[in-house]
Parts: sequence; C-alpha cells; structure tokens
Amino acid sequence: MQEIHGGVTAAKGFTAIGVAAGIKKNDQKDMAMIYSEAECRVAGTFTTNVVKAAPVKWDQGIVYGNKTAHAVVVNSGVANACTGAEGLGYCRATAEKAAELFGVAPEQVLVASTGVIGQQVPIDKIKAGIEKMKPLLSGSTAAGTLAAEAIMTTDTVKKEIAVEIEIGGKIVTVGGMSKGSGMIHPNMCTMLSFVTTDACIAQELLQKALSASVVDSYNMISVDGDTSTNDTCLLLANGEAGNPEIFAEGEDYAKFMEALNYVNIYLAKHMAADGEGATKLFEVKVVGAESKEQAVTLAKSVVTSNLTKAAIYGRDANWGRILCAMGYSGAQFDPEKVDLYFESAAGKLKIIENGVSTGYSEEEATRILSEDEVTAIADVKMGEAFAAAWGCDLTYDYVKINADYRS
Amino acid sequence: MQEIHGGVTAAKGFTAIGVAAGIKKNDQKDMAMIYSEAECRVAGTFTTNVVKAAPVKWDQGIVYGNKTAHAVVVNSGVANACTGAEGLGYCRATAEKAAELFGVAPEQVLVASTGVIGQQVPIDKIKAGIEKMKPLLSGSTAAGTLAAEAIMTTDTVKKEIAVEIEIGGKIVTVGGMSKGSGMIHPNMCTMLSFVTTDACIAQELLQKALSASVVDSYNMISVDGDTSTNDTCLLLANGEAGNPEIFAEGEDYAKFMEALNYVNIYLAKHMAADGEGATKLFEVKVVGAESKEQAVTLAKSVVTSNLTKAAIYGRDANWGRILCAMGYSGAQFDPEKVDLYFESAAGKLKIIENGVSTGYSEEEATRILSEDEVTAIADVKMGEAFAAAWGCDLTYDYVKINADYRS
Repeated sequence: MQEIHGGVTAAKGFTAIGVAAGIKKNDQKDMAMIYSEAECRVAGTFTTNVVKAAPVKWDQGIVYGNKTAHAVVVNSGVANACTGAEGLGYCRATAEKAAELFGVAPEQVLVASTGVIGQQVPIDKIKAGIEKMKPLLSGSTAAGTLAAEAIMTTDTVKKEIAVEIEIGGKIVTVGGMSKGSGMIHPNMCTMLSFVTTDACIAQELLQKALSASVVDSYNMISVDGDTSTNDTCLLLANGEAGNPEIFAEGEDYAKFMEALNYVNIYLAKHMAADGEGATKLFEVKVVGAESKEQAVTLAKSVVTSNLTKAAIYGRDANWGRILCAMGYSGAQFDPEKVDLYFESAAGKLKIIENGVSTGYSEEEATRILSEDEVTAIADVKMGEAFAAAWGCDLTYDYVKINADYRS
Repeated sequence: MQEIHGGVTAAKGFTAIGVAAGIKKNDQKDMAMIYSEAECRVAGTFTTNVVKAAPVKWDQGIVYGNKTAHAVVVNSGVANACTGAEGLGYCRATAEKAAELFGVAPEQVLVASTGVIGQQVPIDKIKAGIEKMKPLLSGSTAAGTLAAEAIMTTDTVKKEIAVEIEIGGKIVTVGGMSKGSGMIHPNMCTMLSFVTTDACIAQELLQKALSASVVDSYNMISVDGDTSTNDTCLLLANGEAGNPEIFAEGEDYAKFMEALNYVNIYLAKHMAADGEGATKLFEVKVVGAESKEQAVTLAKSVVTSNLTKAAIYGRDANWGRILCAMGYSGAQFDPEKVDLYFESAAGKLKIIENGVSTGYSEEEATRILSEDEVTAIADVKMGEAFAAAWGCDLTYDYVKINADYRS
C-alpha cells in the first residue's frame, strides 16, 4: 500500500469541485460535489442520534434502497436538521436539480449538509450552486482539494488522503475527504466523510468493509462528547480500476480493508487533532484488556473526560483524572493493577505502576506533554485486547468558538 | 417546614469547626470536624466509580457495618485517592486519633477527603489538626460556617442550609453542608455532603430516606461529566429532638423526607451554580415524559452537553444543540413532537414547537438567557413523567482552572 497525493478525485473516474454559493458570508466556499459517470455501488453509515438531519434520512433511503449513485452534493453553513417535512423536501429538490443536469434518477444523488441546526437551507442558492459546479467538475487533485475545503465549517484545515493498492494486477485507489471539528463524538460515523474508490467490489462487501472500518476509526474519536444529528460516512465504488471483482472475504478483501482503514483512520485522527480550539492530538491506548469492548469503553471514557482534556492542554501529568475517567467508564478492572505511561516524540515515561505514582519527574512529564501529539497508554493487565481512541485538548478557544458560534 | 439559619450545627447536639492545618498553602482552612456526643445513626451513599478513594472505603465499612458514629473528620487539599494500602492506613490513623480524643471506637469516626488525586495525605498535619480542632468545637452557627468553608477546594462560595419541621410535637432540625465544583457528575452522591439531624429515626429508614433523596438531588447535577473517586454523602441522626421514633413510612417519615429533600436539593443546586468557572445555574426540565427514567436520561444528557453549556454561556438560544443532546441520550422520543421553552426571571419564551422553530425573537431569547439562573423546558408529549437536572455553563474559566489545577 502506498500513500499518494489527492483525495476524492484520486480514484479513476471521479471528479469533484468546491465553490462559494452564497450560503456562508464573505464569499467563502460552501458547496461541494463529487461525480462519477460510471454508476457507483454505495455504502454508508449514519448517526445514531434519534434526531436525524433531513440529508441523513435521504441518504439512508439510497444506502438501504437502490444502493447505487452517481453524485454527492454537499453544503456547509446550514445543517438542514430539525427542519421537518420542508427540510426533507429541500433534499429531494437538491437531488432532483443535480439529477436533471446529469441525466440520472434523483435516487442516485446523495446529499449532505453541515452547519447550524434548525434553519432551512436556501434552496435557490443551492440549485444555483449545482448549476455553477457542474461545468467546473474535474478529476484533478486541485479540484478534490477545493471540495475538501468547501465542506469545512469551524475546521481549520482540510482533511483529505489517498492510497493505492494492487489487486489482481490492477492499481486500485481509495481516497477520501472529511470535515468535523465540533459536535464530534460519533457513535456510527463522524460528521461528514466521503470516500471514493475505483475498486470493483460486491455491494454487500463494500458495506461490510465500511461498517467494520468505522468501528476502529470514526467511532474512536471524540472532540466534545456531542453526537451530531448529521454524522454521515459515504463510500462510493465505481469499479473503474478494472480489478477482478472482490466478491468474497479473502486476500483481496483484506488488502482493500487495509487501504480503507488507513484512509478512515487518517481522516478520523485529523478530525480529532482539528477539534474546535484544540492545540494537540490526544491519543489514548488501552492495552492488556480482557476484551476489545472493555478496551474501547476505557479508552473512550478517558479521551472524552473534560478534566483530562483540560490537563492535557495545561501539559499537566494529572494522571488521577485518567484513572478516575477509567473508573467511571462502566468497565470493570482493578485500579491497583494499572500501569500508565505518557508518550510523545519527546519520549516515554511510566507515570503510575500498580495504581500508584512511580515518583516520576514532573518536568520530564511536562516536556513529553508539550508535543503536538501526545499519547496516554494504560495497561490494565487482564488479557491481550487493545483499543486506541483519539481526541484533543480542551481549551479557551473551544468555549469561545461555541459560545459565539451563531454570532 | 421552615428554613432557618445555619448548617451542620443547626440540629441539637451537633458541634463543628473548621481550621487551617497546613495542608493547603497560605494558611487557608483545610480541615473540618463534626461531632455529636450522643451516638448517631449513620446513612451514606458513595461514588460508583471503580476507583474509590481510601476514605470512601473506610466510610463504607462503617455505613455497611456498625452504622453508628460520633464524628466526621474532613480534609481538603489532598483527596487520598489512588494511594493504595498506605492511603487506607492513613484513614485508620486519622480515625484513631479522633477516637482517642473523644473516647470512642475508631469505627465511630467517619473520614472524608477532597483535593488532588494520587498524593499521600500529610498524616502528621492531620493529627495535629484534629488536636487543634477538638477544643474549638462549638454548636454555634459560626462554627458550622467555618466547617463549611474548610471543606472548599475550587468552590467560590460555601454551601450550607438548615430547616425545621415538627414531628410529634417536637421541633426536628435537618442541616447540611457540601462542597463540590469540579469533577462533578455524581452517579450516587456528590463530592462531599454532610447532613446532620436531631431526628429520632430507625437506621434502615435513615438509609432509605437518604438513598431516595440523592436520586432527585445530587444525582441530577453535573458540572463536567466527570464522576469523582471521592463522592460521599453522609447523614447523621442523633435523636436529640426527642420526637417519637420514626420506625415506619407514614406521615412523619414523609415530613422528614420533605426536609431532607429540601436540604439536599438546595445543596445540589448550589454546587451546580458554583461549578468551576460557571457564571450561571442552568436548569433543565423534561416534562410530558413516558417514564421517570426517560425524563432523567433526557434531562441529564442536555445538562451535560458541552455544546449546550457553551451556548448558555454565550446567551445564545442555540436550541438545536439541546434537541441534539436529547437525541443522543439513548432515550427514545419523537423529535417532531418536542416543544422547547427558555425561562428565567426575565420571562418565558417558546423556542420550538413540534420540533421546528417558532420564529421567536433572538433578542428576547438573549434577554432571558442573560439572567443568573436559566431554565430550558422540553415537553416530549408522551406522558406525565417529569425530571429536573441542574448544571452550569461552560466558560473560559473552567478551562483555566483545570489546566492549571496543580500549579
């Protein structure tokens, strides 16, 4: 597997673009489109929030229904959530507009939105945006980047990546883009993530691969514990790589999974690192767990703890908060057996052994916690299972961004 | 029932004091003691965190064991959590020191600690503090206040209250004090709360009353979603009011419960309002729920949501975040039936009706949200059940306090 430049346009046959359609102020980019002339098989995972945005409902109709698509239309600025029947009608109108231009059925156009909850989308601007984007669609790397930029809200950096693998003598590419910075605590998938591939793969396996991959990627990140109404991850496969169709689990499927996991974990970690107001990527690894489930529960509890996150911001090795967050996670373990380490590019330090302080140097701990990416490793000494979760520190700026979000 | 001045010394036969014992810097008060010469029946509720501080383990031995006590010794500054066998030994040493001075058994002295996790308590200072406190014990209101002040950590105000009721022609008093500002998301009880009463009541009923009361008081507050290792609520009853013993549920028990609930809800709300960095008390009421459990789940999810709390700080009626937090709570409901109101001393405003915006005035909403105490009321229109939860806003100062806590 090899990482290459690009994102959603890296795979053969995919074009994209991002433009300013007047939804956001100050001529900021706010609409993106992905298009494949060849029909794509589609897989998707969605928010588990009872409150589902209209585009989530629209896309679920496609992913659980015809399972094929040619295009994705995305807007940022307005989430089209809590907008009732009117909001769902605007999803259909958006899909119909694109379908008309591409000469496909509306049920082959996926729709996604992100932004403020409770406002109706300006449908005339969205229709005009689609008309504006169609002639600009391009398979270039730059066009993919424009799309990745257009879906950002409070994100500070675009997130895109692509990798190549070889299947049956053919180069297969998997590329993706995502956005997400606040309201990030996916319990199915993250805010918005779009992955395209030219792999030829049976639809059931495509969905199986995506559902398995989100468990170890998007579902393991948290910025603020708030699970969004709009979380959507879509995977489109147009088969243009010409590889022999992957129709069963086996070596080819494993290669594809590896590439998909790489792309999803990359995008997930970069969303965590770009958490609203964040200054650091905070990784939590739980090792020696009795079961994967236990490891996941412990790792997520620590990465979500406000007190721990504030301590990480302060470069303070306040390990009691980590042990405390493990303690209230709901998972059972013996606190008096736990070893805990901090690790970063600056080194690795054992902080507690069997539940009590090692008498480590606070200066050394602060030096390790001063890096941009820091990891806490907890060994609960009960078995062989393992999990990693990713989050960020809690800063003044998180509060600032979210106290003033709509002003 | 009548509210009166005072706290833990309001009930007959209880004395208390708070002093500086040198555990904290700058001669701040850091030790408190409560004492009743008459033996008290004791009830207690404790943290559900798997990681339990040593004093929690010590007190559980008493509450589940002999169920009687004469004294409580509390220190602030050091939590005595994650301190292993050595830490538990210091609890016993603390109890033994007080027991020796009072001529009672060590198993009749309760111990509580709050502060930094992972450090051993300075036992010599604690023993000296007990010696210093004993001759200063007093039944005065001022002595109770000194005790309430001595248990504070990042709290900005002391929390104490007392009420009187009449049972069988006798005046019965219930008074309490508590502390708690960060690491507050009790799942059993809050950081530290001590309630004294001169009621004569059977021990089983005392525990039953306390266990029922914490459900609607301490268990319904959240500052930051972090459930502490030290949460302890103790209720001591010395019987000195001379009322006919309450030995069964009935009118007298109901009166006692009413007084106990009043004291506990008052202390709980004041802990929420004094949340670290908080500028507001944020109350969430869920009405029209199918069951009490559903109402509790929904109310707690909203009051814990960082995004909602940051919006409350910004006086921003960002109601989508409230509906979103209800949606990921785990409780089932129909988002398209929900009505939501904001209410404060400045008025009451319907924000959404049947899941969509009423087109309310943002200025009016901001005016309502500018008060010190604001309430969100969600009507899910499924039944008659109700719950209230209390929290606070999320501010820059929360981050500041917790990034720098140990420095």
